[in-house]
Amino acid sequence: MREIAQVLDFIVEIEKLKNVIRHTRPVGLDRYENSAEHSWHVCLAALMLKDYADEPVDIDRVIRMLLIHDLGEIDAGDKIIYASETAAQKDHEAQGVKRILALLPEHVRAGYFELWQEFEAGESAEARFARAIDRVPPLLHNLHGGGHSWREHQIPRERVFGLNSRIGLGSSALWEEMEKRLQRAVDEGLLK
Amino acid sequence: MREIAQVLDFIVEIEKLKNVIRHTRPVGLDRYENSAEHSWHVCLAALMLKDYADEPVDIDRVIRMLLIHDLGEIDAGDKIIYASETAAQKDHEAQGVKRILALLPEHVRAGYFELWQEFEAGESAEARFARAIDRVPPLLHNLHGGGHSWREHQIPRERVFGLNSRIGLGSSALWEEMEKRLQRAVDEGLLK
Repeated sequence: MREIAQVLDFIVEIEKLKNVIRHTRPVGLDRYENSAEHSWHVCLAALMLKDYADEPVDIDRVIRMLLIHDLGEIDAGDKIIYASETAAQKDHEAQGVKRILALLPEHVRAGYFELWQEFEAGESAEARFARAIDRVPPLLHNLHGGGHSWREHQIPRERVFGLNSRIGLGSSALWEEMEKRLQRAVDEGLLK
Repeated sequence: MREIAQVLDFIVEIEKLKNVIRHTRPVGLDRYENSAEHSWHVCLAALMLKDYADEPVDIDRVIRMLLIHDLGEIDAGDKIIYASETAAQKDHEAQGVKRILALLPEHVRAGYFELWQEFEAGESAEARFARAIDRVPPLLHNLHGGGHSWREHQIPRERVFGLNSRIGLGSSALWEEMEKRLQRAVDEGLLK
């Protein structure tokens, strides 16, 4: 098969991310978000927040990470961040990423599985920043949407503050602002 | 207002792109596509097709262009590419992009309106490639979806070939492959 036909097969296959449904509703919408539109949202959010990363980051690597970070969900589905991650689920995602990247010619896919793993590990400056950004939209959806997802999944405030404090590992300024907004949500009774 | 709060306002505002509805259905889905998930799709498509650009392109600039290329639709809505573009509509989009970027601190938004204009003008190597990529998903949606959008909008084959031949301005290999697939759709009676 011609190489470019292989890339087009990949482009058709990743369409499926548009049908992976997440656990929060975009601001102002009744429906739940899908992982494809979420991926766009975090890429553009990262670009505009890059000056607030605590460490120097290569923003283009951050964006590439975020473009592919949810591809594993095509096979494994989306899990709410408050669910405990199992090794089996992470493995399911990894196998999914491998399967999808394998559609591409070898020289085209080179490096992307490792980039996905780097995001998952969260240890490099780019991964820490990308993971911080990834957590922001669900919080904004809740803050601007009556805390719908916190309520539906009965997430107590301690879990919301605890889990999302990791935003501060990538950007302390961002966590400071989000923490203030979460505290306001507690004061207003939105977050119990 | 703190700068980072301004960026968060921008991040909430651009959520609206998730509610801008396009004219084709993603492969395998009954619903129409929205411009946010489309934006993710073309960014990742561009990244994986970069080796097939006719001229050397700075792929990270291409991706930034594609991340923002549809922001003007938040105020102006999406128009099918087969509709003739009016100056009033383009101006509406430009004003929309300006309004949304104005939410950002000045040093954060610097250069992005010009980047959007560069995409619209389609004259730089990056803009030619980005515009080529932007045309591919609607064709794939039709090719893998019974030609639904061509049929709904009564687009004859001459228009489909004519308008999309511009893909060849960014990547002749890509247009060659798409042209072959379109020809097959004609042979199978999908494209009249």
